[in-house]
Amino acid sequence: MNTFGHLFTLTTAGESHGEALTAIVDGMPAGIRIDRDELALQMARRAPGTGIGSTRREPDRVRLLSGLRDDVTIGTPIALLIENSDVRPGDYSHLKHTFRPSHADYTYQAKYGIRAVEGGGRASARETALRVAAGALAMQALAKRGVSVHAYTSQIGRVSMPGGYEGVDYDAIYTNAVYCPDADAADRMIAEIESARAAGDTLGGIVNCIIDGLPAGIGEPVYDKLQAMLASAMMSINAAHGFEYGMGFAGAAMRGSEALDKWTTDDCGRLRTVTNHSGGIQGGISNGMPVTMRVAFKPVATLMRPVESVNLHGESVTIEPHGRHDCCVVPRAVAVVRAMAAITTLDAILMAGKW
Amino acid sequence: MNTFGHLFTLTTAGESHGEALTAIVDGMPAGIRIDRDELALQMARRAPGTGIGSTRREPDRVRLLSGLRDDVTIGTPIALLIENSDVRPGDYSHLKHTFRPSHADYTYQAKYGIRAVEGGGRASARETALRVAAGALAMQALAKRGVSVHAYTSQIGRVSMPGGYEGVDYDAIYTNAVYCPDADAADRMIAEIESARAAGDTLGGIVNCIIDGLPAGIGEPVYDKLQAMLASAMMSINAAHGFEYGMGFAGAAMRGSEALDKWTTDDCGRLRTVTNHSGGIQGGISNGMPVTMRVAFKPVATLMRPVESVNLHGESVTIEPHGRHDCCVVPRAVAVVRAMAAITTLDAILMAGKW
Amino acid sequence: MNTFGHLFTLTTAGESHGEALTAIVDGMPAGIRIDRDELALQMARRAPGTGIGSTRREPDRVRLLSGLRDDVTIGTPIALLIENSDVRPGDYSHLKHTFRPSHADYTYQAKYGIRAVEGGGRASARETALRVAAGALAMQALAKRGVSVHAYTSQIGRVSMPGGYEGVDYDAIYTNAVYCPDADAADRMIAEIESARAAGDTLGGIVNCIIDGLPAGIGEPVYDKLQAMLASAMMSINAAHGFEYGMGFAGAAMRGSEALDKWTTDDCGRLRTVTNHSGGIQGGISNGMPVTMRVAFKPVATLMRPVESVNLHGESVTIEPHGRHDCCVVPRAVAVVRAMAAITTLDAILMAGKW
Amino acid sequence: MNTFGHLFTLTTAGESHGEALTAIVDGMPAGIRIDRDELALQMARRAPGTGIGSTRREPDRVRLLSGLRDDVTIGTPIALLIENSDVRPGDYSHLKHTFRPSHADYTYQAKYGIRAVEGGGRASARETALRVAAGALAMQALAKRGVSVHAYTSQIGRVSMPGGYEGVDYDAIYTNAVYCPDADAADRMIAEIESARAAGDTLGGIVNCIIDGLPAGIGEPVYDKLQAMLASAMMSINAAHGFEYGMGFAGAAMRGSEALDKWTTDDCGRLRTVTNHSGGIQGGISNGMPVTMRVAFKPVATLMRPVESVNLHGESVTIEPHGRHDCCVVPRAVAVVRAMAAITTLDAILMAGKW
Repeated sequence: MNTFGHLFTLTTAGESHGEALTAIVDGMPAGIRIDRDELALQMARRAPGTGIGSTRREPDRVRLLSGLRDDVTIGTPIALLIENSDVRPGDYSHLKHTFRPSHADYTYQAKYGIRAVEGGGRASARETALRVAAGALAMQALAKRGVSVHAYTSQIGRVSMPGGYEGVDYDAIYTNAVYCPDADAADRMIAEIESARAAGDTLGGIVNCIIDGLPAGIGEPVYDKLQAMLASAMMSINAAHGFEYGMGFAGAAMRGSEALDKWTTDDCGRLRTVTNHSGGIQGGISNGMPVTMRVAFKPVATLMRPVESVNLHGESVTIEPHGRHDCCVVPRAVAVVRAMAAITTLDAILMAGKW
Repeated sequence: MNTFGHLFTLTTAGESHGEALTAIVDGMPAGIRIDRDELALQMARRAPGTGIGSTRREPDRVRLLSGLRDDVTIGTPIALLIENSDVRPGDYSHLKHTFRPSHADYTYQAKYGIRAVEGGGRASARETALRVAAGALAMQALAKRGVSVHAYTSQIGRVSMPGGYEGVDYDAIYTNAVYCPDADAADRMIAEIESARAAGDTLGGIVNCIIDGLPAGIGEPVYDKLQAMLASAMMSINAAHGFEYGMGFAGAAMRGSEALDKWTTDDCGRLRTVTNHSGGIQGGISNGMPVTMRVAFKPVATLMRPVESVNLHGESVTIEPHGRHDCCVVPRAVAVVRAMAAITTLDAILMAGKW
Repeated sequence: MNTFGHLFTLTTAGESHGEALTAIVDGMPAGIRIDRDELALQMARRAPGTGIGSTRREPDRVRLLSGLRDDVTIGTPIALLIENSDVRPGDYSHLKHTFRPSHADYTYQAKYGIRAVEGGGRASARETALRVAAGALAMQALAKRGVSVHAYTSQIGRVSMPGGYEGVDYDAIYTNAVYCPDADAADRMIAEIESARAAGDTLGGIVNCIIDGLPAGIGEPVYDKLQAMLASAMMSINAAHGFEYGMGFAGAAMRGSEALDKWTTDDCGRLRTVTNHSGGIQGGISNGMPVTMRVAFKPVATLMRPVESVNLHGESVTIEPHGRHDCCVVPRAVAVVRAMAAITTLDAILMAGKW
Repeated sequence: MNTFGHLFTLTTAGESHGEALTAIVDGMPAGIRIDRDELALQMARRAPGTGIGSTRREPDRVRLLSGLRDDVTIGTPIALLIENSDVRPGDYSHLKHTFRPSHADYTYQAKYGIRAVEGGGRASARETALRVAAGALAMQALAKRGVSVHAYTSQIGRVSMPGGYEGVDYDAIYTNAVYCPDADAADRMIAEIESARAAGDTLGGIVNCIIDGLPAGIGEPVYDKLQAMLASAMMSINAAHGFEYGMGFAGAAMRGSEALDKWTTDDCGRLRTVTNHSGGIQGGISNGMPVTMRVAFKPVATLMRPVESVNLHGESVTIEPHGRHDCCVVPRAVAVVRAMAAITTLDAILMAGKW
């Protein structure tokens, strides 16, 4: 399926090197004034050439074809169109009969019996440009309800940012090329990327995400738990290999007495917890604390050095590096994680009937 | 929502201490002979009192009310009924006005304005008995297509089983109380549980799961990627805090050159990969290799020692330990993880139109 | 699929002569006190033996297994169970190898390769007992919002009740055996049934339905228009062959100048229309006027006289009349139409986020 | 919602006078060669100015932006784009503060608190151009399986075409301006339209539709019965007020003995029925006979003479006729009914896992 969500939905179409990327965003609440500059800003943060270690530069201008009247949403679906302006189909002819390792070439062929070879076709992360656009719309709706979503790079390769979700300076995220709010860690991440690139190699990493301002009571209690919806959202992003929220995998090694989030009250007398091991969710439903999560990305599968592979006949071939490819997409994935979190959160609010 | 899946669906109802747990399993292929002993075996593996560190013993006999003719499925929905035979509502009266820490008491109250206090109501892991039953049905269908699902405990507290997904001896899983196929690790896990229990404390852990025999071409390519469906399935399980597949979070620290799964051919000339960092999935679609995943569980939130909390008025209260509670539910979660993997896999096969 | 609805859903299971009928009603708003007598009353109106021309009498007692606390809904799913107490499997052995004309015997066999022969199995109208129960719950929720649903017989065989949707005396509906609010028409309908029964023949008819009190703004504008959801609901009822709303098929022969619903204002200054050719819906969305519709039912397909048919081998056979069968199910269908309208209306209100 | 279907889905966006109409068709089987001329032909049959009594002429050129490789489908979603080339927003300024009778002006305002005034915005039948395009794709897939769909006008105003579904000459449908295969009836329909237009009035009518070649076993047995899916499809078309299949409303007046479809065998020894009162469906599942249905359309709600209405303040206003409007859209609706039947049929085949 190419649709995500229940009441706020994103349906996308488009291959990497096709005519255009198209999306339909449905369920957008009426009466939201869309800030097109803000939308463009989000798009720029995911754009190729962004940050460090990126390649193909393309403006990714999004046309909004419907659902607006004088830039205010009217409740009808919003169609998004990104024309592909930088398509060079010739680049990929050498892959026509080859299955690249750790790419989706073989699996698409197995599923459909046919595939778009160029640029990975539908499996390319080009598709995520539409998610960022839809997420930018969702964020603008969420802002009306006091909900904000932030994401940042917390690990690239073996370089991690110290500390947890608390005290992150959101304003510092976009002050460096890797979108890490810790300046020192950012410097080390950049060095890690430069080292990998020099070796013709690639890197993965981890993106952290925090949803602030979500009131208690959002999320479904059994299936489609808030964390399940978020996990589905994140694991649908290209190259994502892991999802955790709150204490996550580290929680497996904790004792119950360490992990309990004690109740207290804030200055307004509202319940909140002293710690947030629960990641803002209990029993699938938000508890009013920040919703915290991390998404792990594998290293980019296209190396800038020769790679062994097989062709359609199962014969060994060597793929020589062509063109230029990202060494590490984690900084660009920051915008995608943020967008998917925003889309999911708006959907969950609508499902709860609490818009 | 209380329904999981697209074409093979599980809809459940029932509170922990209500009259009964009820489920409707829809989309079961016709013509499958149901082995009721096998179903009972799966139920027993999740049953309270199973393994070590468990409490309330209840037979959990599942009645199959429809969808069968002489124990053969006829394509119509199968209703499952588990009457609650061991209900002691008196146990929970002290919690009527209290929100326990790290439980769903407060969030249900916030969402619905009312809640079933007894045993956590709908938030109780009692619901997972129905998942195990449905999973047992799914596994019997999958067996017809040569697909099998296995799960086992790989970590309890700080004790991990060494090694990865390869070479696991499925036959050894149920030879010890913690359902860990590594006998030495199992011994240490049991000691870990005994130590925690002696302290009135609780433990979490990690369950590994492997789907064998799944042909290439199963899974949706963008949203509802196979890993996204599995993540949603696993993160809907009580206490689950993390999901990863293939190389998972460890992949974030790998270089691309380490992570690539090189192609080779098996004895029958079929493509397979030398390593399986991809966890059997590329671009959301199965590639014919085993599908591998891990699910992290937080420690049990009910301690066997006094715990501070708040009441409905936000006033501090102390909850004294009542009754007996599981110290570690990870062994029981093995059956639930396995069941959810089976349910998801059958759904994905049906969605691919490849039944 | 065996689930109806989007946010308020009904999932059912059970064959005519199986152990039990089971349903799970999900999405019921929390805080509704359930009147069990009212539920029993609705069940009685659909029960076999009801009205005239009916057969098998069965109490159809519905157990509510979950989702309630002291008979107040708590937002969790409500499981419904009707144990089959009057099952006589022997009655149907003569049909094991036969496809009855205008029944679903052949189509189930074609779809599943296997079928429950007894009583039509899953294709039996027994399933509608669960719809009536779910509808009774929905009606109690709707009543909290001032919405009421009524249905009545407007035609049996060639006997029609005169007049349209206006001025129907709801209080008169249940004063006769055919549930027609026009006493004179009811008498003639009863005579029509007696005549058909004497001939061993059967009858169909038409049920009218009116939703009162629905505010403007409910319904989706393009797909899942309110009339599309209602049409899907009604055409899922056994033996239903036609659906129309507002002016319906008669509108095809009207001129635009006759069909326009002129605007006016009511005593409170609210907009309403002078006529209601639109049936309370414009562009898929309610306009605040009563929502009016009609559902046509074909005659019962089981005659009380010998019928020619074929067996599994395509050979001609004659089916002799067995047991006793309803001559006309239209009066019993009144409760089903009403229930499906209530279920759909509650779902549409929830989808509109206006609960 | 703006999505139709389950596995073969159509999601649409776009207001009548917005920048463009956009659709995403998902679930299209891979390996179908798309005939663009055939697509253009279907579009032409719905185009404004088609047949008699139509207005705004617009080419409605559909761009296919994705999902194809050398005009062969690759299993990925197909985005459709129709740029609006003939938009005159000035035409509608007089309606800004007015609710037209029997239009969706008021209901959109009630639902969203805001609306696109021009040309009815999202409520305009412009949206159906996308359905016809998607239907043309579906028909090309169905043709691969020997399934064909035909539709034609059977009634305009008070003029009906005699006869039933049998013996219709599909080749004669497009030989006249009203798309009625009966030449004599077509002449009388044209006269009826000319008469209504001369009076500044409008007409409705009925479209018949037949699905040939559908094998037995397609359709869901309880909810989403094949007739329920078709009813939902048809009742989602602008101005549709009634749906019936097989014997339809007429069946309500038939006796069971008349209505039974006796079994026989065809020349190949396959089961078929002598009559087809069941409309090719029994118990929600196709029986191998032609699936037959009728859809009633109300007369066009925009008259070419002054009409009384109210403004946003509830004050009476008179709407003078502006521009030119269709007197009868039934001939254009033929293409839409056909398309929706094709879309639904392909979806049902995929749901049955029988592609």
